[in-house]
Amino acid sequence: MTTVSSLGERALIQRITARLSMPPWVVIGPGDDAAVIATAARTHDVITTDALVDGVHLDRRFVPADAIGHRALAVNLSDLAAMGAEPRAALLSLVLPDAFEVPEFDGIVDGFLALAAVHHVTVVGGNITRTDGPLVISVTAIGAVGRRRALRRAGARPGDEVYVTGTLGDAAVGLQMLRDGERVSAIAERYLRPEPRVRAGLMLGRNRAATSCMDLSDGLADGVRQIAEASGVGIELDGGSLPISDAAHAWHKSRGADAVDTALRAGDDYELLFTVRPAHRGRLRHVRQRLGELAVTRIGVVTRSCELVVQEGGTTRQIPSGFEHFR
Amino acid sequence: MTTVSSLGERALIQRITARLSMPPWVVIGPGDDAAVIATAARTHDVITTDALVDGVHLDRRFVPADAIGHRALAVNLSDLAAMGAEPRAALLSLVLPDAFEVPEFDGIVDGFLALAAVHHVTVVGGNITRTDGPLVISVTAIGAVGRRRALRRAGARPGDEVYVTGTLGDAAVGLQMLRDGERVSAIAERYLRPEPRVRAGLMLGRNRAATSCMDLSDGLADGVRQIAEASGVGIELDGGSLPISDAAHAWHKSRGADAVDTALRAGDDYELLFTVRPAHRGRLRHVRQRLGELAVTRIGVVTRSCELVVQEGGTTRQIPSGFEHFR
Repeated sequence: MTTVSSLGERALIQRITARLSMPPWVVIGPGDDAAVIATAARTHDVITTDALVDGVHLDRRFVPADAIGHRALAVNLSDLAAMGAEPRAALLSLVLPDAFEVPEFDGIVDGFLALAAVHHVTVVGGNITRTDGPLVISVTAIGAVGRRRALRRAGARPGDEVYVTGTLGDAAVGLQMLRDGERVSAIAERYLRPEPRVRAGLMLGRNRAATSCMDLSDGLADGVRQIAEASGVGIELDGGSLPISDAAHAWHKSRGADAVDTALRAGDDYELLFTVRPAHRGRLRHVRQRLGELAVTRIGVVTRSCELVVQEGGTTRQIPSGFEHFR
Repeated sequence: MTTVSSLGERALIQRITARLSMPPWVVIGPGDDAAVIATAARTHDVITTDALVDGVHLDRRFVPADAIGHRALAVNLSDLAAMGAEPRAALLSLVLPDAFEVPEFDGIVDGFLALAAVHHVTVVGGNITRTDGPLVISVTAIGAVGRRRALRRAGARPGDEVYVTGTLGDAAVGLQMLRDGERVSAIAERYLRPEPRVRAGLMLGRNRAATSCMDLSDGLADGVRQIAEASGVGIELDGGSLPISDAAHAWHKSRGADAVDTALRAGDDYELLFTVRPAHRGRLRHVRQRLGELAVTRIGVVTRSCELVVQEGGTTRQIPSGFEHFR
């Protein structure tokens, strides 16, 4: 099998750039010292970066190469979505072990470019270097947001309603199924190829439906805490209303596990958590109508206290602490 | 010694963000899902990313932590300089081994922020994650360039004169001196803390003095080849005119080594290589006057042939191939 080190940096870059096409707003694309892009009129730049490390964020025994590429872009697009931004450009930085095989490299690029195409994201630059350690993929995504249209974590006010897109806990169940060697199913796909909620974020920002928003990369408990802390409020969730898929319910039941607990603690769902003023339910209805199949579920309310609680079957309990890297 | 893993991701991020201040054009800074920045009026965005990997780009036996942070930003600012862009913002992505020590972490941040302050660069975001492998620092830098003012690699025309800033080969000599265990000298500093030629690039772009430009991260031979290929021209260098410092000359003499060969092959100098139309020497003179101590040396001419040659002591030889990663 051909390795990336036998091909060399320039040939690898060429394998990527040969597949790219540039829209007119890319003034200078890959191949120069830096990319030059024309900004969208009357918008601000929205910029985020996130890295995936093999062995930390990825287990290559059951995560195929294209899913790695997909995820590396998806986690960044999810951050842009959480700001209400429209994604435009990405930079792809690959740190590759010498023995990394070219078909794996191509697979990563396949997954990355396929998701980029879905969201009209142009790869304008990047870099490739070798390492004696594990694969690292570092991506920077750049988007545009209308002035005063960016969605922040701060902004939730007492009385606002708390919503979430999609379903919670599927990625965690899917990951466990993959670890258990089960066949790849729709729920495993939720882990392998998360769909960043770009359209939902964009619409929530454009019509000012949301007072705060973030993505749930580290789980609902973490998300609720972040929004509450940034906004100086409390949040009370209704445990019975958390959107949990039939497949996730069935999986938890078969194991005697608690699906609500998974929904609270588990990360990797990349759904959007946001708050809406009751007076703006009409705006939210408008967003929902245009989102088609994507569920938007009311899961709680913003409170004046600084408590984070979940109501379930008549009892109230504190929301557990979220996931933190390095712990 | 306290390790980064015992502190945790949020405490580490807090150690950085506590040191930052945001200019008014940063609409949303670190702490949200992404940063939001207002673009400079009548400019294009210029974006670049580059990564440093411990053991590949860095030898921590003699490269102190602050020099790592300095270099991680410098290599990116050098790319912006090569485009004639004014740097504005940076994202800092750190992939840290669990056992990495907090004083080392702080040192990296020190070096990064010190150089950022020199060039008025604001850190608007980033991320921190753990790894079972070596330290990786991945930086994205964002700048602004006036419309139609960006300097490209393509654009050199036959008859243009070839120039370079500063001196060549110092970083390579400095690195060798560090490897040999010599005391850190001014020439070693050229390797440890390269100065991106931000002001030179900005002025060359603003008054349209240069027809092409790039930075010499991978050495003069590589730079000459890149500009010639992008522009579809040849380049003839005058070996006797290459700017080599007295210290580098002395070092080569003491070893019976060829300083011109080092100047051609060695990377890490981060000087700017650019071409100027003879009719625009007046514009270049204006740039030189405002650059103060930084030397700008004419080292050759652009030719109609596609040859890359260096004239030295009456003989002509082909320019050797440049450095390539992964080989």
